[in-house]
Amino acid sequence: MARVNENYLKLPGSYLFSKIGKKVAAYSAANPDKKIIRLGIGDVTQPIAPSIIEATHKAVEEMGHAETFHGYAPDLGYEFLRSAIAKEYKDRGCHVDIDEVFVSDGAKCDCGNIQEIFAADSVIAVCDPVYPVYVDSNVMAGRTGVYDPKTETWSNVIYMPCTQENNFTPALPEKTPDLIYLCYPNNPTGSVITKDELQKWVDYANEKGSVIIYDAAYEAYISEENIPHSIYECEGARTCAIELRSFSKNAGFTGMRLGFTVIPKELMCDGVALNPLWARRHGTKYNGAPYIIQRAGEAVYTPQGQAELKAQIDYYMNNAKMILTGLKSAGYSVSGGVNAPYIWLKTPDGMTSWQFFDYLLETVNIVGTPGSGFGPSGEGYFRLTAFGSAENTKEAIERIVKM
Amino acid sequence: MARVNENYLKLPGSYLFSKIGKKVAAYSAANPDKKIIRLGIGDVTQPIAPSIIEATHKAVEEMGHAETFHGYAPDLGYEFLRSAIAKEYKDRGCHVDIDEVFVSDGAKCDCGNIQEIFAADSVIAVCDPVYPVYVDSNVMAGRTGVYDPKTETWSNVIYMPCTQENNFTPALPEKTPDLIYLCYPNNPTGSVITKDELQKWVDYANEKGSVIIYDAAYEAYISEENIPHSIYECEGARTCAIELRSFSKNAGFTGMRLGFTVIPKELMCDGVALNPLWARRHGTKYNGAPYIIQRAGEAVYTPQGQAELKAQIDYYMNNAKMILTGLKSAGYSVSGGVNAPYIWLKTPDGMTSWQFFDYLLETVNIVGTPGSGFGPSGEGYFRLTAFGSAENTKEAIERIVKM
Repeated sequence: MARVNENYLKLPGSYLFSKIGKKVAAYSAANPDKKIIRLGIGDVTQPIAPSIIEATHKAVEEMGHAETFHGYAPDLGYEFLRSAIAKEYKDRGCHVDIDEVFVSDGAKCDCGNIQEIFAADSVIAVCDPVYPVYVDSNVMAGRTGVYDPKTETWSNVIYMPCTQENNFTPALPEKTPDLIYLCYPNNPTGSVITKDELQKWVDYANEKGSVIIYDAAYEAYISEENIPHSIYECEGARTCAIELRSFSKNAGFTGMRLGFTVIPKELMCDGVALNPLWARRHGTKYNGAPYIIQRAGEAVYTPQGQAELKAQIDYYMNNAKMILTGLKSAGYSVSGGVNAPYIWLKTPDGMTSWQFFDYLLETVNIVGTPGSGFGPSGEGYFRLTAFGSAENTKEAIERIVKM
Repeated sequence: MARVNENYLKLPGSYLFSKIGKKVAAYSAANPDKKIIRLGIGDVTQPIAPSIIEATHKAVEEMGHAETFHGYAPDLGYEFLRSAIAKEYKDRGCHVDIDEVFVSDGAKCDCGNIQEIFAADSVIAVCDPVYPVYVDSNVMAGRTGVYDPKTETWSNVIYMPCTQENNFTPALPEKTPDLIYLCYPNNPTGSVITKDELQKWVDYANEKGSVIIYDAAYEAYISEENIPHSIYECEGARTCAIELRSFSKNAGFTGMRLGFTVIPKELMCDGVALNPLWARRHGTKYNGAPYIIQRAGEAVYTPQGQAELKAQIDYYMNNAKMILTGLKSAGYSVSGGVNAPYIWLKTPDGMTSWQFFDYLLETVNIVGTPGSGFGPSGEGYFRLTAFGSAENTKEAIERIVKM
């Protein structure tokens, strides 16, 4: 008789953003006259940039004619896109070959799937708070041990707390992990890591034989010097790090779906190269991102595309500034928002994260994300995002300040 | 120290179509003057139909304006598409609710991922020959036992031989499997199953508590009566069957990437409903198919779209007829090609499948797919597809007939 993967049954509650969606829908249904402003989920609001739309139309047109029609894409993605990606790395002084780039339909899938190529008993280390997909995908694979509902932690996961006390910077773990998930600029705290600090992680991973899974989805939001855009800016990263990248946040592709993973050919685990393993997974379980979306992605790298996208990022970062300034003026303890589209605030009056979520939703009709949804050390914190419209963001902050 | 998923290392050789691609590339490089005709991989050649292109352009335009921009899609897919899908089932007399439809970026991903929600020690049964993804994705999950290179079989897989001797129709397995993969119309043999025969499988699965994973990617090619387009035409299928569907073959979406999986809410495994498990996987590891592609998919279901696509299918099935007739006239033993775009032939003169592959490539510059690549019982067979252009197909068959 067929039986299910019991690891799925260990997952507590529903996925964070589904839960938020349900709460908001229920409130909205009960209060249809209220204007809810969403600064919760990390979804963008600016439309796709004009030059990218133009490239997309062109690709759609190609699909309508036999001579220019494109069927199955190459396993790793079209070379035109992988070349553009490799060139961006080169321009930044990083060495990434085009056959080290695997184009996908988004960083969330890659984040979720990458664990598959590692041993079933691998021990993972994650920042706490953290993007839930890193942990949940490992739960589904049976790698995380037993869940303790009191502490909301898994017995076989190394949590690296990131709180006000350590300026949201994790310490190197005492117990050695096999896989280390790092995300910079950080979701959810909006914190960053300097090149020197990241170099320590690379050195640590090389020394211990750990693999770093480096999520650089928000690199386009870095505004300060000496903050690395890629882990490959660090020496030795090619022998210990996988990098995940997204087009969702730098180019507004949340509804277009495009991302990529870089696995350097030198990256070995106990003598086995990871690049061909991931290639095998791509070839077996995936069939490429749509041609027209890959052409849209190519347009991101043109000078025109870059100029249009810089304006979008400036727009969002202006929102971030409004949120930061407004919340500080209202006496909140706030971080992030300078090199990242996320603002991380301490909930007032000892409220739990979900209490503050309900309070904000019910009092001023604003949706944010409870910090505790990202891990136990996120309790007592709350995430707001800069991805709303300027008007909504302004109104939201005014409401919060008045509250 | 990080270690890899050792199951990946058990996979013999590279994925079938990668191997073919490499062989063809090598031959082509050495013989640049030869005109190679590809009737191998199941990729389509007709462009996307005009009304679908129009809908796609419209959706691209929407993405370029803030008021009509679409960010993250709903986890299960947009309701407009899921409604169209549910309606098609209803029109066929099948009951499928819209929250039983999970839109994805293609059937290959769903085929590869679906095993994840089942127990690690599940025993799978597959037809032999079979689409390699069913087996390989289970190998990667460690479910298939030990590989015997002599027989090219896995110790923990139930193979159901489909050969000339049994008219390419598998018998119910003697040992009870947990998961049964069935694909009709069949890839690679082009064979079909009658509704009465399929009902036997449904009854068997319900009796034994097995789950049928039914791949109906080629249902649009069915031309004869009494051949089911969906397993849900059979009584009781809602308690034992998952259905996978693709837009690649009915609408030429191989480069557009769209598919869906149906999991009825009644489908339970040992008391656990599968629908919410797959929903959880979708919500955790996937982020939806692109909005513009889902709008393209919606256009497939309009009367105009249906008319245009019928013409495409007629075109391909005319190719199939040419191949069937030509090969028969040349004395080949051939099957398939009537309700499926695949023609399955017995290799002549006792050649192995790969010998015939090389012979065909080198003698008449035609690329087909070696039957042995689909499993041990495919040895001595060879697959040709009807997805080429009419001109190329005609020329290819003329070359083979003369050979």
